[in-house]
Order: sequence, then C-alpha cells, then structure tokens
Amino acid sequence: MKYFADINVMPMKALLDPQGKAVTGSMRNLGLAEIENIRIGKHITLEIEAPNKEIATAKIDDACKKLLCNQIMEFYEFELREA
Amino acid sequence: MKYFADINVMPMKALLDPQGKAVTGSMRNLGLAEIENIRIGKHITLEIEAPNKEIATAKIDDACKKLLCNQIMEFYEFELREA
Repeated sequence: MKYFADINVMPMKALLDPQGKAVTGSMRNLGLAEIENIRIGKHITLEIEAPNKEIATAKIDDACKKLLCNQIMEFYEFELREA
Repeated sequence: MKYFADINVMPMKALLDPQGKAVTGSMRNLGLAEIENIRIGKHITLEIEAPNKEIATAKIDDACKKLLCNQIMEFYEFELREA
C-alpha cells in the first residue's frame, strides 16, 4: 500500500527563530504590520510503500528522528494519508 | 480578532527539487528505501490581527505573493484558524 506523508519540522517554541524574526520585520516595511510572530520551518512531503498504516507511521518516525529533524533545536509532526 | 495561519511554500511539481532528491538518496543509505519522492519546502506559521476572516485571508495572500513565496519556482497554500 502506498501512503503520502506531510511532515512539518519547526524550530522549538522556546528558541529564537532569527529567520522568522527578520521576515516579521519585513512585513512591517510592506505595510502588513498586523502580521506577527512569524516562525519558519520545513515542510516535507514524501511517498512510502508499506503493508499498513502502523508500519508506515513507524518508518516515517524513524526517518524524522534519524535525518529530517534535529531534535535538539526542532520538533516535528506529520500526517499520513492513503494514496 | 486574532487568527493563526499555517502556510506551506513548496517547489513547483514540474521543477526538480535537488534538496529533496539528495534526501531521498540518504533514505536509501539509512535502510529506508521504501521512502520515495521527497520534496522539501517551507512551513511558515504566523499570527494576524484582522476584523474578519476574509480580510485576514486577503492579507496573508498578499504577504505570500510579496514576500514569502517566489511564484516563479514555488506555490503556496495556507489555512487560517481563529486564535
């Protein structure tokens, strides 16, 4: 069975996000001062072939921990759907 | 009224995504060869103060077009929810 996954990897809430901070400042210069508290992370989409949803979830969790997410500075969340 | 927005900015489907391609190769080296077709973009969260949802949507659309998304190479989608 094939599944699609949508993964978000974001900087931890307790940490400063300098990129988001800079973009928040740029919003003000563009006349969009009502936009605040921007945080920027990664959005990752992928396809996985697995016998069932539990195995697919475990494999993606593994991929996030081993490669996609630096758990010192980032956290991740994901959603799976059938292809 | 305060709204939270979740924005995804992804490389266009017709374009190669070299970063995603490299990570797909690394999955194979990690023993996760069943993961394929990885694409990597940005996930952006922000807060916006607006009188109603229509205005908030229009402002975020504006922010995406002017600053967050390079529409030559990327597309965006977003969801709004009340704080």
